[in-house]
Formats: sequence, structure tokens, C-alpha cells
Amino acid sequence: MGGDFAPQNVIVGALDALHETGNRFELILVGNEDRIRQEVARSGRGLNNLAYSIVDAPETIAMADTPTAALRAKRNSSIAVGIQLQKEGKADAFVSAGNTGAVLSASTLILRRVPGVARPTIGAFFPSDRGPCLLLDAGANVDSRPRHMLEFAVMGTVYAQCMFQYENPKVGLLNIGEENTKGDERTLAVFKLLANSKLNFIGNVEGRDILKGKAQVVVCDGFVGNIVLKFGESLLTMLKTRFREYASKGVVKKVWMGLLSKTIKNILWDFDYQTFGGVPILGINGVSIIGHGGSTPRAIKNMILRAEEMAAKNIQGEIEKSLRSV
Amino acid sequence: MGGDFAPQNVIVGALDALHETGNRFELILVGNEDRIRQEVARSGRGLNNLAYSIVDAPETIAMADTPTAALRAKRNSSIAVGIQLQKEGKADAFVSAGNTGAVLSASTLILRRVPGVARPTIGAFFPSDRGPCLLLDAGANVDSRPRHMLEFAVMGTVYAQCMFQYENPKVGLLNIGEENTKGDERTLAVFKLLANSKLNFIGNVEGRDILKGKAQVVVCDGFVGNIVLKFGESLLTMLKTRFREYASKGVVKKVWMGLLSKTIKNILWDFDYQTFGGVPILGINGVSIIGHGGSTPRAIKNMILRAEEMAAKNIQGEIEKSLRSV
Repeated sequence: MGGDFAPQNVIVGALDALHETGNRFELILVGNEDRIRQEVARSGRGLNNLAYSIVDAPETIAMADTPTAALRAKRNSSIAVGIQLQKEGKADAFVSAGNTGAVLSASTLILRRVPGVARPTIGAFFPSDRGPCLLLDAGANVDSRPRHMLEFAVMGTVYAQCMFQYENPKVGLLNIGEENTKGDERTLAVFKLLANSKLNFIGNVEGRDILKGKAQVVVCDGFVGNIVLKFGESLLTMLKTRFREYASKGVVKKVWMGLLSKTIKNILWDFDYQTFGGVPILGINGVSIIGHGGSTPRAIKNMILRAEEMAAKNIQGEIEKSLRSV
Repeated sequence: MGGDFAPQNVIVGALDALHETGNRFELILVGNEDRIRQEVARSGRGLNNLAYSIVDAPETIAMADTPTAALRAKRNSSIAVGIQLQKEGKADAFVSAGNTGAVLSASTLILRRVPGVARPTIGAFFPSDRGPCLLLDAGANVDSRPRHMLEFAVMGTVYAQCMFQYENPKVGLLNIGEENTKGDERTLAVFKLLANSKLNFIGNVEGRDILKGKAQVVVCDGFVGNIVLKFGESLLTMLKTRFREYASKGVVKKVWMGLLSKTIKNILWDFDYQTFGGVPILGINGVSIIGHGGSTPRAIKNMILRAEEMAAKNIQGEIEKSLRSV
């Protein structure tokens, strides 16, 4: 029921994931049962013997709801019920394009933290010419202490190893200069922790290094990470809007920009959030991925396939192991 | 002598500024006198009775030098000598495309702070569809205290009023959510200070709001500001590189991208750092603007014209007045 185009996009994307993998996993659609049935029928995708079931969750947390208040007031929300299924062993992963704060809170409260994790984190993906870069924390934690940020680095390393097959992922500390002496007090303290860890720490990286792929895991406090993430998204949106406006100024320009937009799409495919689908919550006893509010069916599909992979690879177990050894 | 293309670009840009304004101001070129004479001759621009003079400064601070060490070791650097001219009343403004840290340190040490300013700041410009937005601090200060960030807001407001003619500039606090309760401890404290000030404080703005022009002055600590600034620059650079690579893949694509690049330039003109030329240091007793290391002649020219305007409008005096009333 979450996201700006729910439940249509969610259902279409989910059924596509099932169809394209030939029922490789079991799909549980959680939400208002009647509406789900309607939408499945309308999608024309429910007829092919797909392995899905429906779990009714009569309440919905709106995008604008305050997470903790909404979770308390709506105990039968699709978010709470869906995550509870994992707790009960009836599901292995949860994905949602709904209220980010609510998914984060419910995941942490219901599934609990992996032993050794003080602060679960959200990682965000950035493209680079050397493959994807995972930046964390992307907004789950502010006022992080140095040891929390060490945890982010460990969790990011595990994710990058398991999901991107990076052998020994390079970890960079997001800072305002490359020298060891640069940064604010917290960053200087984190530098020392990372330098003394067993991680493949390459030192400080600057804002300009994220897209260069200098590091495969970039560590920062959620305050910075969230601002960089949202700023980057808005820059791409602004560029797209301007191209569109330019195209609207005449027929020739329109044809021109029509041809152009395909070129641009090719060039920027890996800047498209749909490719990754959503951002994972790391450090909880389970799998939970949060999608963009405006998720398209393709984004939903990719999010589900990635959640399946995270569950199969037991990311949470790997994190627990790795934290113990660090 | 500063920047990646010094002294050529600096001299050409400076002489162009003089030429285009019909000697509206007096230009002092500070640096190695022989090299300056050579470059002026080579530029073919020194013959038109332009009102420039040369002040010899035999030493040069390199881009990679550590600012404070370099300033101590090289007392006759072009940066130190050039800024000293203002101190002695022989100049009204200073611009440089050289070592950012050295210009910042020398400006603060030699010109001193405006009474009432604890921390001078660097402002950076971002384009928006509603006109330029000034973000500060862009990297001069880390571990800023809440009252320092209030100062940034005051200085930014003065600059936006005087230089962009915004009547009552909207001030936004960079944060990870719009609600009053969002943010880290420092940001929550700054929110209170701004809400109780006489500034036109519109509340929190998110990373995605910078380019939307929601606020004309955006306040943050230099750690965040610097990372956002460098990330934004690198995103645009990456896009340009990808377009160029695409163009190199064949003749048809080359023609296609040649036509395209003009369109893109038109659409993105205000993302071009050359338009603003450089970033001003605010809160010092004088005018000092730091340019991009790769400054083109056009960037240098615009930087000089802006410095002239800042001096004419007595920005430092206005900041002092405004701080007293806040």
C-alpha cells in the first residue's frame, strides 16, 4: 500500500518479478485484500499460475504520517503486518515503497538489531565508472558516534562483498580533504578507528570522489549522507526538467529533444534509481528494503529481486560474523 | 600566479575586465614581475592604455602547499603581498585562483575579522529557477557552533541583499527533513537561534531544495557545505565526460554530440562556475574572492567585476552594521 502509485505499481512490479523468475520465490502481497484482488485482476498479470498469496492488512500508514505515532496507532498497517511475517518465520524479506521512517522504525523494533550492532543503517547507491558505490549512512542516523560509523563501514563492506562481488571493498571516509589532518572532530576520531580496523580503509575521500569510484564503500553520518543523496537526486531532476522545458519551445526542438532523450537515458542509465530499486536497511535480523515513493513497476521488481538475493546470501548473518571479527 | 593556468588565464581575464569596463577601476597585477610582463605582451592585450600596474611578489604558494606553513615560509608570495595591499589602503579588493586555504588564511590573518564576526565564511553559489542561491559555509569552518551559523546567515543575507538585490532574502537551514524536530543536535540549536532572529527564516530546507530556490540563503556547517559543493561539481563533470565519451564512439555520434553540446550549454549556463567566477570570503575587513583552480579568463573577469562591486557596495561595512542589529 506504500508509495505514490500504490497499489498499482507495487502489484505490477511484484507480479513481473515472479513471472520473470518463473516462480523462483513465493510472493506475499500485504495490504487491503479487496484492493489487492482488484488491482491484480486489473493488471492482467494474475492469471499465469503465479506463486503469490495475500495477507490482509486493513490499515495504511500514509507517506506524511509521523513514523512512530503511526506505528503505535495503526497496529495492522501493511508495513507492520508485512515485517511481522519475517519475525514469525513466514517470510524471508520485506520490501516497501512506503513511508521511509515507518519502515525503518518497524524493521528495527520488530526484527531487532543484529547482535553487535548499535545502530542499523541505510545504504544508498551511487554509480561510478568503476561500478556501484555504497554510501552509508544515508539518513537513518544523525549524531552518530565514531564507533557507530565503524559499524556502518563493516556493514557496508559485507554488503559490497556479498552483493557486488567486490573482493576486498575499499572503504573511504567522507571528508572535506584527503589529508589525515582534515575534517571535524568526529571524522578525525572515525579515521583512527578505521585505520586500526581490519577493513580495507583507503583514507579520506571528498565529495567529488564518490562518483569517481575511489572507494566502494563510503562512510559518513546520516546527516551528510542524506543531504548529498537528496541533492544529487534533485540535480538530475532539474536537468531533466530543463531539457523538457527546452523541448516544449517548438516543434523542431521537440523532435530534437525526443532523439536526444534516448541518448541521455543511455548515458545515465546507472543514475536511474530504478536500477537498484531501493535502499537496504542493514544491521537488522532480517531483510528490509525501502523504495522510492515514486517507484515504477521496474523499480519494485528490482527491489524484490535484490531482497531475494540478500535473504539467500544471509547478509544479516554475515554482518554478525564480520562484526565479531572486527 | 595562482591556479592551474596561471599566469596566462589570470592576466587575460584581468585585462579583459579592464578593457570591457573602459578602465572603470585600477588593476594591480601581483606576482613575478618578469613573467607578468611577458604574459601581458604575449596576450596582445596590454597595448590599449589600460590602467594596470604591477607589484612584484617573487614567491608563489603552490596549489598543493599547506596553507599556514606556506604563508609562514613565503612572506613575499603573491597571495600575501596582494592581500597586504588592501591592508595598506592601496587596493580595495583581492581575487585569486590560487590555493584556497592560503587565500582564506591570509585574508583572515592580514585583513582581520569584521567586529562581531567570530568565524569568517566562504559562500558558494548554486543556480535555481528562481535565481542564485548562496550556500554558506562552503568549507571554511568545521565544528561550527550554533552562533557561528547564525553569523553565516546574517552575512549571507547581507550579500544576497546587496549583490543579488533580493529584498528580504529567505534564509533556510540545511537539514534532513522539513519538520522543526528534524536534524542533529547542532541543527536543532541553530533552528532556535534563527527562529528568534530578525532574519527572514523560512525553516529547514532539504538537500533537494537547494536547486529549487526555496531559500536564497542556505545555512550549514562547512563540513556539509563543502561535500555538497564538490559532489555537485563532480556530478556535472561526470555527465560532461560521459557525453564526450559517447561522442568519441563514431562520426555520426560525434556530429550529433557536437550539435547537442551547444543545447546542453544553453540549458546549463547557470551551472557554469565561470558565471560567478569565484566564491567570496565574508566577514573580513576587505574583499577577497577565491576562484576555481582551473579558472578560465572569463571566470577571472567575472570574479574581478564582482570584487569591484563588493568593494563599491561596502559589503564588509554592511555586515558589521547588520551583525550589530541582530
